[in-house]
Amino acid sequence: MRVSPSTFDQAVVELRAVAGPDHVLLGSEALARHSRDTIPWQWICSAVVYPSSRDEVCAIVRIAAQHGLPVWTFSKGKNWGYGASMAAEDGAVIMILERMNRILEVNEELAYAVIEPGVTYKQLADHLKSRAIKLWADCTDSTPEGSILGNALDRGLGHTPYGDHFGNLCGLEVVLANGEVIQTGGAPPEAPAWHTFKWGTGPYIEGLFSQSNFGVVTRAGIWLMPEPETFQAFFCDIEQEKDLPAVVDSLRRLALAGALRGTAHLINDVLFTAMVMPYPHELREGQPYLSDNARLGLRSRHGITPWTLSSGLYGTAAQVRANRALIRQELNPYGKLTFVSRSNLPTLERLSRLVKRMQRAPYLSGLGGLLKNWLIGRAPMEVFELIPNAVSILQGVPSEFIVRFAYFKSREGRPRSDVNPARDGCGLIWFAPIVPLTGSHVDRLFDLCRPVFRDHGIDFSVSLIVVNPRSAVALMEIFYDKADSAETARASALYEDLCRLTVRAGYQQYRTNVGYMHRLMEAVPQYQHLLDSMKRVLDPCGILAPGRYGLGSK
Amino acid sequence: MRVSPSTFDQAVVELRAVAGPDHVLLGSEALARHSRDTIPWQWICSAVVYPSSRDEVCAIVRIAAQHGLPVWTFSKGKNWGYGASMAAEDGAVIMILERMNRILEVNEELAYAVIEPGVTYKQLADHLKSRAIKLWADCTDSTPEGSILGNALDRGLGHTPYGDHFGNLCGLEVVLANGEVIQTGGAPPEAPAWHTFKWGTGPYIEGLFSQSNFGVVTRAGIWLMPEPETFQAFFCDIEQEKDLPAVVDSLRRLALAGALRGTAHLINDVLFTAMVMPYPHELREGQPYLSDNARLGLRSRHGITPWTLSSGLYGTAAQVRANRALIRQELNPYGKLTFVSRSNLPTLERLSRLVKRMQRAPYLSGLGGLLKNWLIGRAPMEVFELIPNAVSILQGVPSEFIVRFAYFKSREGRPRSDVNPARDGCGLIWFAPIVPLTGSHVDRLFDLCRPVFRDHGIDFSVSLIVVNPRSAVALMEIFYDKADSAETARASALYEDLCRLTVRAGYQQYRTNVGYMHRLMEAVPQYQHLLDSMKRVLDPCGILAPGRYGLGSK
Repeated sequence: MRVSPSTFDQAVVELRAVAGPDHVLLGSEALARHSRDTIPWQWICSAVVYPSSRDEVCAIVRIAAQHGLPVWTFSKGKNWGYGASMAAEDGAVIMILERMNRILEVNEELAYAVIEPGVTYKQLADHLKSRAIKLWADCTDSTPEGSILGNALDRGLGHTPYGDHFGNLCGLEVVLANGEVIQTGGAPPEAPAWHTFKWGTGPYIEGLFSQSNFGVVTRAGIWLMPEPETFQAFFCDIEQEKDLPAVVDSLRRLALAGALRGTAHLINDVLFTAMVMPYPHELREGQPYLSDNARLGLRSRHGITPWTLSSGLYGTAAQVRANRALIRQELNPYGKLTFVSRSNLPTLERLSRLVKRMQRAPYLSGLGGLLKNWLIGRAPMEVFELIPNAVSILQGVPSEFIVRFAYFKSREGRPRSDVNPARDGCGLIWFAPIVPLTGSHVDRLFDLCRPVFRDHGIDFSVSLIVVNPRSAVALMEIFYDKADSAETARASALYEDLCRLTVRAGYQQYRTNVGYMHRLMEAVPQYQHLLDSMKRVLDPCGILAPGRYGLGSK
Repeated sequence: MRVSPSTFDQAVVELRAVAGPDHVLLGSEALARHSRDTIPWQWICSAVVYPSSRDEVCAIVRIAAQHGLPVWTFSKGKNWGYGASMAAEDGAVIMILERMNRILEVNEELAYAVIEPGVTYKQLADHLKSRAIKLWADCTDSTPEGSILGNALDRGLGHTPYGDHFGNLCGLEVVLANGEVIQTGGAPPEAPAWHTFKWGTGPYIEGLFSQSNFGVVTRAGIWLMPEPETFQAFFCDIEQEKDLPAVVDSLRRLALAGALRGTAHLINDVLFTAMVMPYPHELREGQPYLSDNARLGLRSRHGITPWTLSSGLYGTAAQVRANRALIRQELNPYGKLTFVSRSNLPTLERLSRLVKRMQRAPYLSGLGGLLKNWLIGRAPMEVFELIPNAVSILQGVPSEFIVRFAYFKSREGRPRSDVNPARDGCGLIWFAPIVPLTGSHVDRLFDLCRPVFRDHGIDFSVSLIVVNPRSAVALMEIFYDKADSAETARASALYEDLCRLTVRAGYQQYRTNVGYMHRLMEAVPQYQHLLDSMKRVLDPCGILAPGRYGLGSK
């Protein structure tokens, strides 16, 4: 800890006076809960404070500045795989904004909402549904309890045409390190266009408050999608590994042509497996990971293709028809395309219930097996549940079903509900370089990374996310068994090697975890120097999350 | 001037050593040429320097810092109506980057170009065409000689789906005030995704270099549009003034639905008149401006409707068909919709030549008149030229035809070519508040501004530009006769009043002129304070365009 025990005690007295004694936690259970994630690195916080308002945030920041106490802010702290609510140093105060959870405005005509940081995906989706507001919010495929704003400021990604979460923020209220409050954009207070026009007047500064530590965002506008006349999810099973580059080139053409408006996700067989099954240890053949041969066996046994694409179509019936034609034309050569409308889902659900009942009845199990094969081939039964959950997320309605893949290597198995991989000791590190959206670029990056996974005995799991028509995020999952210290060490070393090798090859990470942030800008010292000089001005005491995304670490 | 004559002389010696003696101008003609625009305010520069490379820019910035000499940078200096190449103070050095005009890369696959600041709209369009590269660049409706990068950093607007020029910049190289060079984005040098992924890693800072003075951008990536299979321009003549709010609401729905992908422009009768005719003094009836009655007469005599909409459709044939159907459904109730394909243009041109020939031949002039009426109604003959030029701009091919409207009040009339309203003494101030894209918001803003124009005896001219599905820029043109000092004073007072009244009502300007920038942030002192503190860090000597967009003015 950076401050003396007496200073810390004094700060706690003051924090309690501001937030109320019940909202400043010091107990070891609370500290432990906020000092862990699925990553292999850990730092222990000294206190957790839950302000209930912007003014309390201002007061807390002033207390921290006065005492030189680092404060790390998290909206909900569900940033699993990147650090959850963990600081990159021991002894920091963790500030959780979950009590600031008001939906301040929904403007149906102009299709935006104004929210506080504690508002979750589930809360906003429920709010829109219960009031019959014809707007869709985007969500991630992680927990419904995640913060919309926290994820957007971390520049997280969703699935709909509004999946670039930071790109759809507009108009921020920010508490600066000196406790002052500003509104971005240079508009007069209560400007009607504050949440409709992103660039404002004068320099556009909202980007400064994403992936950084220049201030605490306490309110933001977020653009929502008018409910489309027609929605269809679609899935494509890519049959041949060798077709990946061609498929990537198709995705670029489709995105540039506006046919692919959503944030398409192309996942490999390992990640697909993680979504629907526990880790198939029986296939490992003594190796620490699934060999190429074992993966072929896995694919063939469970009818999994090397790559599976999912995305959505949104628009009028005619727009969807036009775009579907383009998608068919580009992707038909590579595997089975399935389009799923909302109206298909009840039928699918009834059929899956029927299959389950038939399989339980001995004399019908054969017939049930045939029906299942006709519906989903050799895929595991969980695919029946995966589809509606995926389709739900493609409409912006969150589900915790998919993120259960974080339990892939967990010995405890996966919970049916109350999913929380950080609490449950799961092992997962994200590694997410950005790659230009061409087949040859993606091929080159994967060729660089795949052998590194193999060398460390970890399965190569990846989701290629089309984040704009020219780029993808290659979101690689390092799944490991946290209860196995040797495997944990291998996961950690793998991550280090991936970082080192990809930086050398010119790649940058789209987002990273607290354990690596201090090294993020190593390759660009002048740029880091510029950001650090801005940090010193905006936060002269260096108390806002020092070191977050490499800023002001020393 | 801020520096002593001897210091200035010394600085000039050093500037000449860097850029070469021929590229540092001190002659009164050159200084005058760079110290004027169509706005009523003027400041006289002390020297003009033309660096040829980034390294020369670095050296010039260092010289300026050493001597405390303000340097105002312009890419081409064609920012007519906002200040052209004029500083907001006397005695500044003007740095023009037009010699840095290399197109460094065009990536056809990933649909972007990397350009220097001196690259013009015409140059890039010609480059793409001559090499048969199937990409379209966006352009403004101002001069083809304008800088792509200068306009984008000023957050100017075009007409195609890539009309948000700043929004389509990706990856900047910037010379800082200390002469250091940075690349934005935090990526390793030569990162393959530098020009494909906008947000980079860590805080997104590119916005800091737009509408500001934090650095000199010397290179940038710009996203280009793959040539669509189908393109159609469309025009809608809105018959009734009272329908404006309903039309605005239609435009919002169309933009939200993705049917209106281009940056639609809705212009009023005065601006339409300015595009096709000299000012109709004969209709003024002794008033300094056209009364409501005179405008009715003007409309009826020349077949001009209160509002005219123009935009484009881009996509596959099926996409365009789907979107055209939506546009028809929304806009048909309000006036005549005309769709123009590229294939229509030669016919239109032939017919217009025929009309002109017939009208010149006495015995055929009656028939020629009938043919003209059938084609363009009572509109002036210049509409025959306006249409192909407008259609060209909607495809990203620039034309200087439309910006001739800046000569509306000029006594010298309009040139056929070599258009340069700053040089030619035209009077034009832009006033451009941002407004949420709803009928009631637009109505309220126009109701606020229209009487102010009338009170000052200036015609209310406006183009409502749909800049995103939720916002429009209400680009108002204050046309005045610069040779008439009383009218010039009225134009100036009108501008002042518009600024004051709209700020009080909560509106902000999307972009402004050098004469007003120092007052831009008056309503938001804390925000200005934040920006000024950043300016002091990034430019401690305060030499980069001090006062630009209100930053670091004192």
